[in-house]
Amino acid sequence: MIYAREQLSEIIEKYIAALPFPAEPKELFAPISYSLEGGGKRIRPLLVLMGANVFSDNIERALPCAGAIEVFHNFTLLHDDIMDNAAMRRGKPSVQKKWNHNTAILSGDAMVIYSYTLLQQTSYEILPKVLHEFNKLALEVCEGQQYDMDFESRNDVTIEEYMNMIRLKTSVLLAGAAKIGAIAGGANDADCDILYRFGIELGQAFQLQDDLLDAYGMEETLGKTVGGDIMEAKKTFLTINALNEAGGATRRALIATLQDQHLPLQQKIGRVKTIYNSLDIPEITRTVISEHLTRATEALDTLTVEPARTEALRELVQMIRNRDK
Amino acid sequence: MIYAREQLSEIIEKYIAALPFPAEPKELFAPISYSLEGGGKRIRPLLVLMGANVFSDNIERALPCAGAIEVFHNFTLLHDDIMDNAAMRRGKPSVQKKWNHNTAILSGDAMVIYSYTLLQQTSYEILPKVLHEFNKLALEVCEGQQYDMDFESRNDVTIEEYMNMIRLKTSVLLAGAAKIGAIAGGANDADCDILYRFGIELGQAFQLQDDLLDAYGMEETLGKTVGGDIMEAKKTFLTINALNEAGGATRRALIATLQDQHLPLQQKIGRVKTIYNSLDIPEITRTVISEHLTRATEALDTLTVEPARTEALRELVQMIRNRDK
Repeated sequence: MIYAREQLSEIIEKYIAALPFPAEPKELFAPISYSLEGGGKRIRPLLVLMGANVFSDNIERALPCAGAIEVFHNFTLLHDDIMDNAAMRRGKPSVQKKWNHNTAILSGDAMVIYSYTLLQQTSYEILPKVLHEFNKLALEVCEGQQYDMDFESRNDVTIEEYMNMIRLKTSVLLAGAAKIGAIAGGANDADCDILYRFGIELGQAFQLQDDLLDAYGMEETLGKTVGGDIMEAKKTFLTINALNEAGGATRRALIATLQDQHLPLQQKIGRVKTIYNSLDIPEITRTVISEHLTRATEALDTLTVEPARTEALRELVQMIRNRDK
Repeated sequence: MIYAREQLSEIIEKYIAALPFPAEPKELFAPISYSLEGGGKRIRPLLVLMGANVFSDNIERALPCAGAIEVFHNFTLLHDDIMDNAAMRRGKPSVQKKWNHNTAILSGDAMVIYSYTLLQQTSYEILPKVLHEFNKLALEVCEGQQYDMDFESRNDVTIEEYMNMIRLKTSVLLAGAAKIGAIAGGANDADCDILYRFGIELGQAFQLQDDLLDAYGMEETLGKTVGGDIMEAKKTFLTINALNEAGGATRRALIATLQDQHLPLQQKIGRVKTIYNSLDIPEITRTVISEHLTRATEALDTLTVEPARTEALRELVQMIRNRDK
């Protein structure tokens, strides 16, 4: 059967809620359950199951992979929160805030390993392929995180470098998820690669939306402070484009504003957004997002399956196109 | 052919030195090479190859597993050093000292994943079994580390709890290494389990020796300060046994001395060792170490292979029996 997104979401929530973590040592496993209960959009495991469902009615086979991908994703959030010294995650205290620093490191470590424990439940015939994809994306996510940290101290990051960084940090996980789903669904190599490309395009769009929403989203829908990236003078698609587009004076004003430690936060955000607006940065960003989403859909068009089988993925693209949080 | 320990050591060093790490991002991979160059005794990868060589002349098949085990072991050291805030490791600055805290976290993460990347190179027929063993030991090592941290704030740790903690933190890695080697060597399940038991006994002895050497080793041979555990008032086999054996007054004196923040270090170490000596703790510890090593050798006796094939493992037991560093 072909599953609707809501059905797949329900299957994932049930699966994650039923994951059998040992009871002891409590300090190790309680933070893992806490992280996974945190919710989030579950887009990555959804991509695994949707990817499988494109090629097969049997999505059961892809479930451990979906679980592995979601646990791994939450591990990256947990360790990122240590590195960013973040106090909150999804409206709740982060693990290192609720427990402590060492617990956050060690629980994160256990989560990576646990994701492989789930992966290991994959049928033997596809295990080598799945493991290969998973290892590849997992290492690339670390590379992306490292580049992201490297960029903090640089003012000459190019758009190409930035797009490569978010490809590694964000998109390969979505792409790998869709491809692993396809492998579990029995797709041939060419179709697996198409789903990978689909995931990359979706991921790039997704991350650029994050950048855009961080500055232009609504606090109420977003559930977090708007302007966080500006506050931390983070390199984002908006900043880098603005630095590229701006003439000398505006460029200097932007850098000065971003680096000004004394400017009240709301004023800083206001000034930076005024510069963004004057340079048409929101529109430029929206155009690039739209192009990536269009390419995602076009990738699906090249699959040789009946249209109904890609419906859920197309809907997901649409959902992401319209997202405001 | 049956390999001698020196030959296997050489094969391991060559393999590790030739591991193909990406050049970029440098901050991510340089600390990994740095950690692996650090040397150490390479006992765990040796156990993999020796385990394989008991059952097969072909040790090539076990090499990626040996690499995975060694990379994983070094990952645990790297993250342990963050959690312990250790400045030195094997006579060199620790990664978080030489680079920084975030680099140490992220490089450690990449090392876990890299160990799975090596594991993935295992032949398909044995991959599921090997992956299962690896996942099991890896999660248990995290559990052991958590118990170790839990024990810091407890004064009522029993010997049984302590032995279980070091089984998880230290021995399952040695046991898993030997067993994975056996799997790669084509051993049957019973023989694999024997090598696992062998590794557990060896590991327990090894950790108790660490405890003993930390207080009674020679600084020159050990290459580190003697008395580190006493300085940090760590729960070790020596402390826990002493607390068990001592009468009320001696017990109170031991606790007071360990917790005294003002006592000069050498004086503290001297006093604690005097109490240990009066309670025969070194002798008790040596006896238990010897019992574990004897059980390790006895496990080998139950294998149905020609004696020459277990020679290297028996030599390793002997080497560990005599180690003074």
